[in-house]
Formats: sequence, C-alpha cells, structure tokens
Amino acid sequence: MTDETTNPLRAGLTARKVAEPCTVVVFGATGDLTARKLMPALFNLSREGHLPQRFAIVGFARRPKSDEEFRAEMGGLLHEFSRSKPAGESEERDFLARVSYHQGNLDDVLDYQSLRERLEQIEQQDGLPGNRLFYLAISPEFFVPVTENLRAAGLVHPVASDGPWSRVIIEKPFGHDLQSARELNRHVLAAFDESQVYRIDHYLGKETTQNILAFRFANAIFEPLWNARHIEQVQITVSEHLGMEGRRGQYYDTAGALRDMVQNHIFQVLCLIAMEAPASLDAEAVRDEKVRLLRAIRPMTTEEVARHTVRGQYGAGSVNGKPAKGYREEVAVDPQSVTDTYVALRLHVHNWRWSGTPFLIRTGKRLPKKASEVAIVFRRPPHQIFDAPELGAIPQNTLVLRIQPDDGIALSFQAKQPGLSLKLQNVKMDFRYGSSFGQPVPEAYERLLLDGLLGDATLFTRADEVDRAWQIITAIHEGWAARPRPAFPNYEAGTWGPAEADALVADLANGWRRI
Amino acid sequence: MTDETTNPLRAGLTARKVAEPCTVVVFGATGDLTARKLMPALFNLSREGHLPQRFAIVGFARRPKSDEEFRAEMGGLLHEFSRSKPAGESEERDFLARVSYHQGNLDDVLDYQSLRERLEQIEQQDGLPGNRLFYLAISPEFFVPVTENLRAAGLVHPVASDGPWSRVIIEKPFGHDLQSARELNRHVLAAFDESQVYRIDHYLGKETTQNILAFRFANAIFEPLWNARHIEQVQITVSEHLGMEGRRGQYYDTAGALRDMVQNHIFQVLCLIAMEAPASLDAEAVRDEKVRLLRAIRPMTTEEVARHTVRGQYGAGSVNGKPAKGYREEVAVDPQSVTDTYVALRLHVHNWRWSGTPFLIRTGKRLPKKASEVAIVFRRPPHQIFDAPELGAIPQNTLVLRIQPDDGIALSFQAKQPGLSLKLQNVKMDFRYGSSFGQPVPEAYERLLLDGLLGDATLFTRADEVDRAWQIITAIHEGWAARPRPAFPNYEAGTWGPAEADALVADLANGWRRI
Repeated sequence: MTDETTNPLRAGLTARKVAEPCTVVVFGATGDLTARKLMPALFNLSREGHLPQRFAIVGFARRPKSDEEFRAEMGGLLHEFSRSKPAGESEERDFLARVSYHQGNLDDVLDYQSLRERLEQIEQQDGLPGNRLFYLAISPEFFVPVTENLRAAGLVHPVASDGPWSRVIIEKPFGHDLQSARELNRHVLAAFDESQVYRIDHYLGKETTQNILAFRFANAIFEPLWNARHIEQVQITVSEHLGMEGRRGQYYDTAGALRDMVQNHIFQVLCLIAMEAPASLDAEAVRDEKVRLLRAIRPMTTEEVARHTVRGQYGAGSVNGKPAKGYREEVAVDPQSVTDTYVALRLHVHNWRWSGTPFLIRTGKRLPKKASEVAIVFRRPPHQIFDAPELGAIPQNTLVLRIQPDDGIALSFQAKQPGLSLKLQNVKMDFRYGSSFGQPVPEAYERLLLDGLLGDATLFTRADEVDRAWQIITAIHEGWAARPRPAFPNYEAGTWGPAEADALVADLANGWRRI
Repeated sequence: MTDETTNPLRAGLTARKVAEPCTVVVFGATGDLTARKLMPALFNLSREGHLPQRFAIVGFARRPKSDEEFRAEMGGLLHEFSRSKPAGESEERDFLARVSYHQGNLDDVLDYQSLRERLEQIEQQDGLPGNRLFYLAISPEFFVPVTENLRAAGLVHPVASDGPWSRVIIEKPFGHDLQSARELNRHVLAAFDESQVYRIDHYLGKETTQNILAFRFANAIFEPLWNARHIEQVQITVSEHLGMEGRRGQYYDTAGALRDMVQNHIFQVLCLIAMEAPASLDAEAVRDEKVRLLRAIRPMTTEEVARHTVRGQYGAGSVNGKPAKGYREEVAVDPQSVTDTYVALRLHVHNWRWSGTPFLIRTGKRLPKKASEVAIVFRRPPHQIFDAPELGAIPQNTLVLRIQPDDGIALSFQAKQPGLSLKLQNVKMDFRYGSSFGQPVPEAYERLLLDGLLGDATLFTRADEVDRAWQIITAIHEGWAARPRPAFPNYEAGTWGPAEADALVADLANGWRRI
C-alpha cells in the first residue's frame, strides 16, 4: 500500500479522449496567440491522438495569403513554439495538410459568407459532419462584430441533439466592466446558446489549478479542516517581477491589475479553493458552485473599498539588482497614467463555511519575484502545552499550493527539535508536482482546446459567473473613483507594493507571507 | 513566514537544562548496558554541559576491581561506544575522575552498608548535597533484592521538599505477568515513593516517539481528524529481520514477542498515538492520559483472544537471500520451545474518540525487514466525484509516522496526474527527520538519564500504567493457555508471519500494510 501508483485497478482509467470530426476556425490566425499557443496546442493534441482522423483547421485573417504560405508559416512556428517538435517531415506535412487559410475582414459580413462556402466545401470534401469550433483569438473589440457576423452569415448551427454542433471559444478579457461584460454577453448570446459558449481563462487549464479540485475532493482529510473554524486566513498571491515588456503597456494601461489579473485568474483560483463540493465534475455542477461562491462575496460599498482594498503603481526602482523604469516611463504607457499595477484586497465570503476567514489577495507588476500561490493559514492549537509563555510565537500550520514556480504542495507543521528537551521547530512536508511525475505536463491551451472540442465546459466560465465577478470588480473601481486617488507612483519597482497594503493584514499575526 | 526556523522569539527556548549536583550509582556496572549505553550517555551529557560541576558516578558490581581499573575500562568503552568521542586526554580524564567503583554482591545487605559509607564519604569530599540516582542495570530477578537492600541499608532518602532526593531507574522488563509485576511494584514501593521510581522504556527516549507528542499537540490540523469519524484503522508495526543473535535466546525464550515488545514499547507508542490531549506536559498529566487510554482497552475474554490475536514462531527460511535457522534451532533456545516470536493483535479502544477504529498491532522476529512505524489510515471521502465507477479503488489517505529506519513522517494523498483528463494518482508528501535537522540526535538513554537526573518522569512508566498494560497482556496469555496452541513453527523466517494474521484484517480493504 505504500506505493499504489501501480494499482492495476487504475489502469483502465487511461483511455484516451478523442474529439469528434470537426473544423476549427481560428479568427486572428496571423496573431501572436495563434502562433505561440493555438497551433502548437492543436499539433500536440494531434500527435498525441486526441484529434480524429477527419479534422480541419481554417485560419481567418485580414492579410492576403495562400493556403501554402499559411502552412509554411505555421510549420515554422511549430518548430519554434511547440513543446514537442514534429518528429519528421511527414508528421509535419500530415498535420499541415489539414490547415487552410481564409482571407477576410472581421467586420465584413460578406467575408463570413465566403467563409461559410469555404467551410461547407471543406466539410464535403473531407467528409466532415459540419461540427465547428470558432476560436476568437482576436482583440476584444471584435468579439461583438465576429459573433454578430457568424450569426448573420448562418455559420452557427442551432443546438440540436442530432445535428452537427457549433461552439465558440472567446479569449479574455471578457468585458472591461460590468456594463460592457453584460453588453458582450447579450451579443454573444444572440448568436450562440450559452451551452455553445466557452469563455477561456487559461489559469483553469493549468495543471496546478486543476489539481486544486483533486486535492480538495479526492482526499478525505482536507475537507474537514476546510472552513473558518480551522482556517484563519487564506492568502492568494500572483506576483510578477516583469514590468511592461514590449508594447504590453498599450493594452495594460487601459486595464490595470484588478481587471487584468483579479477579475479572471485570481477569482477562478479563489472559486476552486473556497467553493462547496460539487455533486459531480459535470460542467454545470462545478460552475453552479463557483457562482454560489462569488455570490457570497458581496460587492463592496465605497467605505469598504477604502478599508479593504489598496491599489498601487510602481515608480522607478531596481529588480534583481538592475535599475527598472517607473510604470509611467514604460513604452506605450500614458506619462500621466493612473492605472493600477498593484492591487491588494481583503475579501469576505459571507457563508457558513467561511464567515470569519478573510481571503487576502494581492497581485502586481515589478514585485521582487514571479510567484503564484495559495496559502491556507490554519488557526493555532486551542491549547498550548509546549513552551507555554511563547504561545503566540509558535508558527501556525500552513498549507501552500504553489501554482508557479516549482508547482507543488507544502505543509508546514511543528516537529520536535532533536535534543534533550521538547523544543519545537517549524518543518515542511513537500510534494513537487514536476519531479513526482515522469510525464510531460501539457500546456494549458491543449487542455482547454481539447475540452472545447469535446464539449466539456467545466474549465470555462459561464455568463453568470463572469457577470458576478464583474459586479465585485466594478464596485471596487467605483469605490476608487469616488475617493481621492493615492499619489502614484506609490511603490518602488522591486518591492512588495505600497506600504498601505500592510494595513489590510494588520490584525493577522504574521502579515503578508514572505515568498 | 515560509522559513520560521530563524524566528528570533524562539531563540530564548534553547536554555540548557543542567542537573543538580548528585551521585549516580549504577548497579550492574560491569554489564553490557553500562558499557554500551549508560557510560556513553553520561559522558555525552557531561560534555554537552547537562551535568553539574559537582557530580559523581559509582559503579557497583560483584567483581573485585580498583577505581583505577574500572576507570581504565570505562575509558576504553567510551572510545568504542560513545556517539561522540572524547576530544582529548584531559576531557576523558576529567570525566573519569568522577567515576569510582564499589565491589559488592547485589543480595548482600552488608555491601550496601559499605556502599552507604562510601557514598557519604564521596559526598562529603566532593561537596555533594546527598542527591542520589540509583540505576538498576541488572537482571530483573535482582530488582527486588536491590530495592530491598537499598531500603534496609538506609540509602534512600525519604521524599522531602528541602532535603536531598533519592531516585531509582529500573530497567525492563518490569514483571513477567500481572502477578509478578504487582509483586515487584509492592517491593519497589516499600523502598521508594512512586514519585521516586523511574521505570524505563527506551522507546520513550527515542526522538521519533517523543515527536508524536509534538506532532499531535503542537499542530492544530491533525487533532480534528484524530478520531474514529475520520480514521478507519491504525496499524502499528515493529518488525525485526534478526533472529536470536548471540545468547539472546536465553532471555527471549522465557518472554516471547508479546512480553518483549507489546507490553512495553508498542503499548507506549499506542498510548502516545491514541491518548487524549494532556492539559500539560507535566509527568502526571501525561501519564494520567496514558493510563486512561489503557483502561479503555478491555482485557480480552478467551473468545476474544481466539478472534483478535495471532501468535507465531518462525521455522527455517531465508532472510535477505541467506538461509536462516528456525527459532527452535537457535542457540540457547529450548528445542521444543512454544515461545511466540510473532504476535498480531486487533485492539479496540472503548471510548468516544476511537469507537469503531481498530488498532492493529504486529511485531515479530525474522520478518523480511527491520521497521517500526505507525500508519494512520483515513476513511475514504464520503462522496466521490472522480472516476466514480472505481470508487473503491481510490487509495485512502494515509499518514505514516516512521520510527525507524529513516525516521520521519509521510502523508499520502491523491493528486491529479498531469495530462488531459482528471485522473488521480497516489502521491506523497514527505518529511525526513534526520535530513531536516543539522544536529546530532541524542541517544534515547541520554534523554532518559537526564530526565531522571532532572526529576522529570514524563517519559517513564508509572505503577498503574505498568499494571494496566499487564492486565491486558496477561489476559491474552491466559486466553492462549486456554486453547490449543497452533502448530509451531507456523511461519518461515523471512516472511511476514503466519497466514492466520490476515484474518485479523479481513474486513479492511487493503489488509496489512506492505512495508
């Protein structure tokens, strides 16, 4: 029993999931995401046998380009970006033979009509049943025109149990605030049924994020501790040491840390950490629980925003010993920008499980290091028999789920120091995800694309989920707008954010975790 | 907070404990235990500053020998057996200068009268206040005459808050059955007050055994799980691959596995694992809880003995690829011996915490490997959302406290296998005691001797504890006597004991743990 990894009863679980015959249409086919993530992901899915024999990929973009030119470009990108390289020319050729290119403007309905003809031609020629996955790897301002045109050109099949399916994967950001997200949902849901819509959050495709589900619900020993009675606080940190690389500032300056990181990625992690146990892994069961969790987080009042949130923007400083520019000096950033590059929140989940346990969230650019983790800090023992006078000094048990780097799980606890008295020391049990499994970890996009092809929406966000997340985020933006802004910049590049963030954790023994 | 080992608040806890000026009198001064354990332990305590400036050691044994001769012998033994060798001649000389030898017969009261004069002389000469620790490193048949003679010769000071103290450390075995243990307690307690009596169990001096206390009561996260609701079963294994080395069989053949290992060591471990939280680490508080636990284990009826115990004796076989003799062929063992060299028990703790959780104990000689461990096997999750059809196949969470080899703690749990579906795999978080601390681990005897010198009886067994342990053990011996004995030998050397032991765990999914 010490090693059950060889349990023969589990061998049957390794059956490979294969998508149904279909066509993937990628809007934004000449863009960065297609090049770096989507094509490599489709290639890896194909070579690992997750794609069916009959399968087509159609790239849609503005620039004139022949099928041959597009294939040659994609072939080059596979060699550059794919985690597994094509094993030989024939493997590469077989994959690229399924790829075509369709030139068109995202906002011209006529180009969708020709796309429709093209798809029907490919479907007929390749014996495809008409299943279509539209991937919107495009700038968010085109989400509305594309879905609108897909509908107008009759490219979307209605939901039917026996006919071919249509699905759409929509990239982030899904909306800029509550109002725009609702507007976007309204348009998307005029063209597609909610069951056809796959809103992507690549954090949900990460192995470690998914492992939260396994950790919580495949083990009997954590759930009894997983509540306010035993957990004093939860800290979620997503820190980046980078600033605005390349022209990233152009988009970032319109978004800020709260939109860019909290509304989507961090809220998804928070949901998986804090939600009730779903009755099954069915998409609706899981997403129902996530929405319930978000509904238990009340949008803050202006006064609560002042008390429970801190925003920051970095000034010049130094990161890893090298001088770093301030945010306002970055390329493509407004020199008077008031965009937040750091945010810290103290959230309360108003339900039976979590009442009394604050959820502390912080994320920012130009912090001392890159790290994503969730730390579950347990309460102290109710009664202390070791070294009684120093009760407060004995560290709390902490369970850390590391998302990156060095994905894994660590549990810190007290052990007796070797020696002639009963002195304690904080020690760690550690599990490293990477070193514990001898197999390659798929990219988040592989998982999510495959799920889209399989029609499993568990790891995609639902309209009501996005809506609730924006309610919470927009309330914070409104609270910020209603009060004087802190004097930006208010933290130096290479530090852990504005000093004010400490006030959010002033009542907690150890403040923010040192990472 | 990730590394709190440097917490400055904990620096104050490292104050060294130093014994009061006193004399240690070792009965059995020329024996094996004195040579291998006691002298090295006293030397290490001395060199690490736990012994006071004024301090004397008097060896008592039958053979005529001068102080000088005894010192020379002891000096040689230090070099051979001590974990830290004397750093130089002066260190060795300084230590040995405190050592004297007193020749005498254990059963001759006159020799105790001369011992008394000798002690008074040493105490006066060295300015010692009269504190005396008597160490009975002798064969158990002398426990009664020695305590008797100590009393008769007036060597034992009565308990007094202001006068000098007297204490006695008694080696194992403490009794052979309930009746002899009671008889021994009666004699010992005629000479000493219970507060002066230190019954040794060297398992309690082991770091890992003591760490059970720290693990359970310095951490808030284990105690909520530590009961029958969450724990399906507990398995305690003490396996030895050795048979009867040297003339060990001479003693062992009169004892057997149940007496030799279960009544003392395993019951101590069981008590620490299963007892309620003591209000403090005070000796009486801890021992009260241990006794309460033992009282919750009811002595078995004859019928229960038949159902819940299995005994075995090894026959010839092979261990680590080498042929091994059967027990009856061992040196100094009766060729018709019916002594148990293996025992397995299924115990039930009849209290609120443990009702419904069996404690499975097994120990034996000539098993495939040497290992001591406690495995806490948790119940399965109440509801399974992963791979539902194989519910029963998903391994249970198991926490293993390894006492030896490779002392440490391992927690096995389910994690998601990297890959494109939600498949689980059993993985482990591990903490290794040895590699986690950069300091030498003291010998069990150092800890126990120092505690005896300091007057801390927490890690020694109390009269009522020994009594209750013997009630449980003797009931099993009586149950065995009342029924036909299995045909010995009934397991081969190098196997995991008799096949009948499997019946004890037939209702548990995975049987005995594979170690």
